[in-house]
Amino acid sequence: MIVMKEGATRDQVDAVVERVESVGAAAHVSQGEVLTVVGAIGDRERIANLDLAGAPGVDRVVPISKPYKLASKQFKHGASTIVEVDGCKVGGTNFAMIAGPCTVESREQLLSTADAVKAGGASMLRGGAYKPRTSPYSFQGLGDEGLRLLREAKEMTGLPIVTELMDARDLEPVLEVADVIQVGARNMQNYSLLAEIGRSGRPVLLKRGLAAQVEELLMASEYVLKEGNDQVMLCERGIRTFETATRFTLDIMAIPVIKELSHLPVVVDPSHAAGRRDLVLPLSLAAAAAGADGIIVEVHHDPDAAICDGPQAVPADRFGDYVEQVRRVSELVGKEISRPEFA
Amino acid sequence: MIVMKEGATRDQVDAVVERVESVGAAAHVSQGEVLTVVGAIGDRERIANLDLAGAPGVDRVVPISKPYKLASKQFKHGASTIVEVDGCKVGGTNFAMIAGPCTVESREQLLSTADAVKAGGASMLRGGAYKPRTSPYSFQGLGDEGLRLLREAKEMTGLPIVTELMDARDLEPVLEVADVIQVGARNMQNYSLLAEIGRSGRPVLLKRGLAAQVEELLMASEYVLKEGNDQVMLCERGIRTFETATRFTLDIMAIPVIKELSHLPVVVDPSHAAGRRDLVLPLSLAAAAAGADGIIVEVHHDPDAAICDGPQAVPADRFGDYVEQVRRVSELVGKEISRPEFA
Amino acid sequence: MIVMKEGATRDQVDAVVERVESVGAAAHVSQGEVLTVVGAIGDRERIANLDLAGAPGVDRVVPISKPYKLASKQFKHGASTIVEVDGCKVGGTNFAMIAGPCTVESREQLLSTADAVKAGGASMLRGGAYKPRTSPYSFQGLGDEGLRLLREAKEMTGLPIVTELMDARDLEPVLEVADVIQVGARNMQNYSLLAEIGRSGRPVLLKRGLAAQVEELLMASEYVLKEGNDQVMLCERGIRTFETATRFTLDIMAIPVIKELSHLPVVVDPSHAAGRRDLVLPLSLAAAAAGADGIIVEVHHDPDAAICDGPQAVPADRFGDYVEQVRRVSELVGKEISRPEFA
Amino acid sequence: MIVMKEGATRDQVDAVVERVESVGAAAHVSQGEVLTVVGAIGDRERIANLDLAGAPGVDRVVPISKPYKLASKQFKHGASTIVEVDGCKVGGTNFAMIAGPCTVESREQLLSTADAVKAGGASMLRGGAYKPRTSPYSFQGLGDEGLRLLREAKEMTGLPIVTELMDARDLEPVLEVADVIQVGARNMQNYSLLAEIGRSGRPVLLKRGLAAQVEELLMASEYVLKEGNDQVMLCERGIRTFETATRFTLDIMAIPVIKELSHLPVVVDPSHAAGRRDLVLPLSLAAAAAGADGIIVEVHHDPDAAICDGPQAVPADRFGDYVEQVRRVSELVGKEISRPEFA
Repeated sequence: MIVMKEGATRDQVDAVVERVESVGAAAHVSQGEVLTVVGAIGDRERIANLDLAGAPGVDRVVPISKPYKLASKQFKHGASTIVEVDGCKVGGTNFAMIAGPCTVESREQLLSTADAVKAGGASMLRGGAYKPRTSPYSFQGLGDEGLRLLREAKEMTGLPIVTELMDARDLEPVLEVADVIQVGARNMQNYSLLAEIGRSGRPVLLKRGLAAQVEELLMASEYVLKEGNDQVMLCERGIRTFETATRFTLDIMAIPVIKELSHLPVVVDPSHAAGRRDLVLPLSLAAAAAGADGIIVEVHHDPDAAICDGPQAVPADRFGDYVEQVRRVSELVGKEISRPEFA
Repeated sequence: MIVMKEGATRDQVDAVVERVESVGAAAHVSQGEVLTVVGAIGDRERIANLDLAGAPGVDRVVPISKPYKLASKQFKHGASTIVEVDGCKVGGTNFAMIAGPCTVESREQLLSTADAVKAGGASMLRGGAYKPRTSPYSFQGLGDEGLRLLREAKEMTGLPIVTELMDARDLEPVLEVADVIQVGARNMQNYSLLAEIGRSGRPVLLKRGLAAQVEELLMASEYVLKEGNDQVMLCERGIRTFETATRFTLDIMAIPVIKELSHLPVVVDPSHAAGRRDLVLPLSLAAAAAGADGIIVEVHHDPDAAICDGPQAVPADRFGDYVEQVRRVSELVGKEISRPEFA
Repeated sequence: MIVMKEGATRDQVDAVVERVESVGAAAHVSQGEVLTVVGAIGDRERIANLDLAGAPGVDRVVPISKPYKLASKQFKHGASTIVEVDGCKVGGTNFAMIAGPCTVESREQLLSTADAVKAGGASMLRGGAYKPRTSPYSFQGLGDEGLRLLREAKEMTGLPIVTELMDARDLEPVLEVADVIQVGARNMQNYSLLAEIGRSGRPVLLKRGLAAQVEELLMASEYVLKEGNDQVMLCERGIRTFETATRFTLDIMAIPVIKELSHLPVVVDPSHAAGRRDLVLPLSLAAAAAGADGIIVEVHHDPDAAICDGPQAVPADRFGDYVEQVRRVSELVGKEISRPEFA
Repeated sequence: MIVMKEGATRDQVDAVVERVESVGAAAHVSQGEVLTVVGAIGDRERIANLDLAGAPGVDRVVPISKPYKLASKQFKHGASTIVEVDGCKVGGTNFAMIAGPCTVESREQLLSTADAVKAGGASMLRGGAYKPRTSPYSFQGLGDEGLRLLREAKEMTGLPIVTELMDARDLEPVLEVADVIQVGARNMQNYSLLAEIGRSGRPVLLKRGLAAQVEELLMASEYVLKEGNDQVMLCERGIRTFETATRFTLDIMAIPVIKELSHLPVVVDPSHAAGRRDLVLPLSLAAAAAGADGIIVEVHHDPDAAICDGPQAVPADRFGDYVEQVRRVSELVGKEISRPEFA
C-alpha cells in the first residue's frame, strides 16, 4: 500500500505504478479527495526491494501482508505445531516445564539439581555449557566439560537436555548432547547460526531479543523454518523498557499475540525477565494463565552459592511445590504438563 | 550515598561532607582503594535538595532509601490496605471486578450495561462522563449529563460508581456521584488534582502514567496519602514500549513489585493495555494469577456500535462467563471476588 | 484504510462498507489476490469513531491522513509560524535563546541571573514560580511571590518572561506576568489547561511529554490552535528510553521531523534532557545544527547553591561564551538570534 | 556497595561481610539510623560473582566502580585513542567521513559511487558484501563477489575499505579486503566474533545494538580491547524507542557521554537511524556539533534504483555539498576531516 503525498503529481503516481508493475506485481490506484493510494499486489519481497518509500511524491509505504510465511497461523491452516522431544510434547494442550541451573558449574551441582527437578516434575533439563556474558571478565561457562556433564545428567535422569549454542563452530559437539538447542536473546538475529540450526533438524528454543518486536521474532524463526525444521519453540524472556524496578519487562501480551499470529508454541522464561527469585512464581502463574505452552525456569540446589544468576533461581527443595502451583493454573486453561517417557 | 570521582581531592570530599552536615545530616566517609564514598544519613529531601551530583569531584549520587514514605510497605508494618466502598472490598484477600462502558454514551447504553455487569458478577460500575481524548475533534464525553446517568445507574443496580475526574474544577459534581474517583494515566502527575482528591477523602483509583516508573506511581499516590486519604488503588494499564503489535505493553511484573513495596492494592486494566478484545481474557487471567487485587474492564452491551473504544470491550452477554474464568484463577491464589452489600 | 482478514467473507466486507457510508464517507473496495482492503474517504473523526478495528473480519485499520489539521504544514501552505513577543521572534530565520533559573528561589538569585543572561545575549528570561515535583516533599516553588519577582526582573531587564502554568485556576495571576506561558511535559495532555491557554491568546511554549510521540505533541498543540491561538512553540526536552546513562534521551530527530510536519517553531531544552551541566553545550550545538528555532536553558548565578536542578544549570559567568558558540552554529544553518527591542 | 534491607539482622550483615571477604575483598560496614550499607572493595568480578543481591537481608547491590577497564578514559589517563588507517585518522581533532553504498550491488554501482565519494571528500569507502536482513527472503548481499569488487574499488580510488563481518568463519576473506571491520548492531554482543576480530588486530567499527546501553557498548568493546587491539571506533546508529515517526531514535547524547567515559572515538550513522534521506543532513550536522569523531553515511549513485535501503542514501551528485556543510560545523568544534594519503 503506497500512500502518495498530498499534491503528488499524476506523473509521480504513474511512476510508482510503473515500478510496481516492473516486478510483476499488480497496481491498483485509489484516488481519494485528499490522498491517492496505490495498492501493490504481488510478491512482498520484490515490492519491498523497490524501496518506494523514498520515491518522488511518496509519503509512506504501509505493508499490509505479513512478512513471514512459514511461521504464520495461516500456513498450517490454524493448527498448532507440537514440538516433541523423547515423548515430551510442547504446544497444543501440552505444557512443558523446563528446569535446571542457568549454567553448569560442577558435576555435583548439575546432578543434584537434575535429580531434584526430575523428582519435582520437570519435563526437560536446562543447563548452559557456553554462556554469553556482558563482561569478558565474567565466568564464561565450562564449555566441553559442561556438555559432558549434561550428557551424564541425561543418562542419569532420562530428561531431555536444553542447552545453548552460541557459535556455529560448536554445532557438532552441541548436537551430540542437546535434545533442544537454545538460541539466546543476543543471537536472535544471528542469521547464519539460525540457518545452521535449521539444517540440523534439531528442535530449537529461540529466545526473543530484548528489543525485538514480535514480528521480528517470527521473522527470525522463519530462518529456521525455511531450512525444513519446524520444531521451533519461541521464548518470551522480557524486553527492555524504561522501567528500572526489574531487570527486564516481561511482555505477557506476547503470549496471546504470538499464538494468534503463529502456529509455533510459546515458552516463557520468568527467571531472566525478573532477575529476582521472588517474582518467579507470580510470573510463572501469569504466563500459564495467559496461555503459554511452557516455562523455562532456573533451579539451583544451592542458589546462594551459584556462580551465575543465583538470585533468580528457585531453590531445588521448593521446586515440586512450584510445579504444583503452575500445574493448577495451566489446568484451568486446558493444558497438561507433559513429561518424557522415562525408560 | 555520594560516590566521588576517581582522583577526587581531599578538599572536594571535605566540601561534600560539610554540605551534607549543613542540612543536619550525618556524613560517613568510606575510603576505598580506588573510590571514596560518602554516606549521608538524614532527611532524604533535604539531602536531595543539595543536588550534590553536580558538585566538584562528585561522580554520582545513589539514593539508597526510598523517596516515598506513606505508600511504603514499612509504613503499615507489612499490613495491606483494604479499600472499602459500600461493603465492597479491594485488597488483602478481596478481589474487585470493576466493569462497565469506557464512556457513558446514552441512557440505554449505560443502564443495559450496568444491568448486565451486575448480573454477571461485577463489584463496581465504571463509566466515564469526562473523557481525555488525544484529538480535540474526538467525542469528549457527555459531561454533567453523564454524571446524572451514572447516578441513575447506581440507584438502579446498587453498584458503586467509578468515574474519572480530569479537572479539579469539576470536583464538586463528581463527588456527588463517584464512590471512587479515577485519575487517568495522563493526569498521574497532575499534582494539584491529586492533592484536591486527597483532601476530599474519597477512594481513588490512580492509573499509572504510560511512561511512569513504579516508583513514580508510588510518589504520585503519596500526594493523595499525605492529605490523610489512604483509600488509594493503584492501576497498571500498560506502559509505552517499542512493541507495536499491541497498543501498550502490560507490565505484569508491576503487580508483584508494587505489592512488595507498598501496602496499597493493585488493579489491572486489560482493556486499555491491549486495545483489543481478544487479549482481554488472557491478560485478565494473567493479572489474577500474578496477584492483582482487581480488574477494571470495559464491557459494552453492543461493542460494534460503541462511540469510543468499542473494539476492546467485552460484550455484555459474555461477561458472566468472563467473570467465572477470572474467579477460578483468583481463587487459586487465595482471593475472592468481593461485591457490595446490595440493599 | 480498513484491511480485512484473510478469509473475510463478502458479507463482512459489505458490512464495513455500509458502516463507512453511514457516516457520510465514501468506501472504495480493493480486492487483492490475498487481501481485501477498504479505503474510507471522508471525515477522519467520524470514521475513527466507528472503531472498525474490532468489526468482524477486520484485521486492522491503518489511518492514512494525519489526525491534526491546524498544526500541519499544509494548513499554512508551507509557511512557518513566527511567534513574536515584544519584538523577539521565534521561527523562520529567528532563533530564540531563552535562559534563566529553573525555579525562582529568591530576589537576589533571580535578579542577578536575569542581569547576567541579558548581558550574555538572552532573548527571553525563564523562571518557574510553580514547580511540578515528583515528590510532595520537594520544594514546590515560591508561587505568587515568584510571579512578583519575575515581574520585577522584567521591569529591570526588559526581557520577556517565560513561566509555567500548572493549574488552570492560576491562569489569571500568571497572565499578569507571563509573556509566554510554559506548559510542562507532565501537562502536555492536560486538555482543559491547553484549551484555557488557547483562549487566553497568550504565546505558549508546549513541552513534549516524556513518552509522547511527535504526533501526540502536534495533537496537543491542536487543542491550543483550535481556540484561535497560533502562537505556539513546541519544545523537545528528552524522552524516556531504556538508557540510564542520562536522565532522558534527547530526541534530536524530532526537530527536523516536526519541522517537516508542522509550521510551528521548535525549541530544545538541553538542561532537563541531560540533567548534567557538561552535556548542555554539546546538546545545544547539536540542536542548533539540526535546525531548532531556539533553546531554553537553565542558568544560575551560583549553581552549587541552587535549591532545584542546580547540577544542570550553566553558570551565569559562562553564559555569554555559551551563547556565542551556539550563535556560530545557528548562523551556519541560516538563523540569527533574535532579541527583544529593549526600551 | 551492598544495601541491607531495613530490619536486616546482625547475622545477615555478618554473613554478607564473610562472603565479601571470602573472595579476598575488604568489607566496610556503615551503620545508618535506618539502613546498613556494606561497602565491598576489591576485584569487581569476583564480588559480582557472589551475586549478593539475592542473599538474605540484602535489599540491593549498587555497583560503584565501572565494569570496563581498557575502554575507560582512566586507562589512557585522559588521552584519546586515534584510530589510523592508511594515514586517515579518526579521533582527537580528526573527523572521518566514511561514505558509500549500504550494500555492494554491482560493479558499476560500487565503482561509480566510490569515484563520487572520493571526489566529494570522503575519508573511507563503506560497502557491505554480507548483509544481515530481518527477512530470509530479502537480498543477502553478493558475498565473495562483493569483497572482490570492494578490492577493485580500493585499488581504483585509494580509499580504505570499511565492510561488515557477520560470521567468524568469513574472517579470512574479509581480512584480505577490509581496512576496517564493521560489526553490525545485531552482532554487538556476538562475543566470539568480537574476540576473533580483536585477535586479528584489524581496526574495528563497532555498532551499538539497538537496545544496548552505553555501558554495554563499552563492555562489548572490551572484548576486542582485551585481545590487544585498541583500534576500535564506537558507532551510534539509533536506538529503539516508542517513537514511530522515525525508524530509530538517534541518541545524540551518547556522543558526549561516551567521550567522557572512554578514550575511544565515536562515529555516527545518520542513515540507518533515520531511514529517510531528508533527515541525513540535519542529523549529520547535529552529530558533528555534538563532538562526533566521524560519520558513516550511505551514498548511492542512483538511490531510486537501489536494492537495499535506497530511500536513506544521499545521492552521489549531492555528496560534495553535503561534506562541505558537515565540514563547516565540525570545524567550529575544532575538528578537521582527515583523508588518506592518496598514492
